[in-house]
Amino acid sequence: MSQDVVKVFGRTVRALRETQGWSQEQLAERSDLDRSYVGEIERARVVASIVTVHKLATALQLDAASLLAQCGRFNPE
Amino acid sequence: MSQDVVKVFGRTVRALRETQGWSQEQLAERSDLDRSYVGEIERARVVASIVTVHKLATALQLDAASLLAQCGRFNPE
Repeated sequence: MSQDVVKVFGRTVRALRETQGWSQEQLAERSDLDRSYVGEIERARVVASIVTVHKLATALQLDAASLLAQCGRFNPE
Repeated sequence: MSQDVVKVFGRTVRALRETQGWSQEQLAERSDLDRSYVGEIERARVVASIVTVHKLATALQLDAASLLAQCGRFNPE
């Protein structure tokens, strides 16, 4: 279950970023996160904390709950 | 912003746990988490990851997005 959660979150962040037409660098800047960390989140190499979820959601003009709700659109495979 | 996010999440988990009438031990067992870790989350001593959010949400019969949405009911102070 855990790795699926991480994979789905990464795919969701990537999809939402690409919907905005942003690079990882641009999302990182808007989220006050490191560019390489955003890449690792998208590739499911790191597990985001609730603080990171809030930072990414704010950058994507969502609240944290809505960002997690978007995860329902993706499956781990 | 970050410490507020952590405090509010902790208060939300505590409130939802108490609404169920569960001890920290019972929530920990249902979430497959360590009892002391649940206590630290509630006291905002640790920052939960999205995997921990999913485990707690599942135990509380919510989805992760709904658990974070409940955070709106509490303020950091």
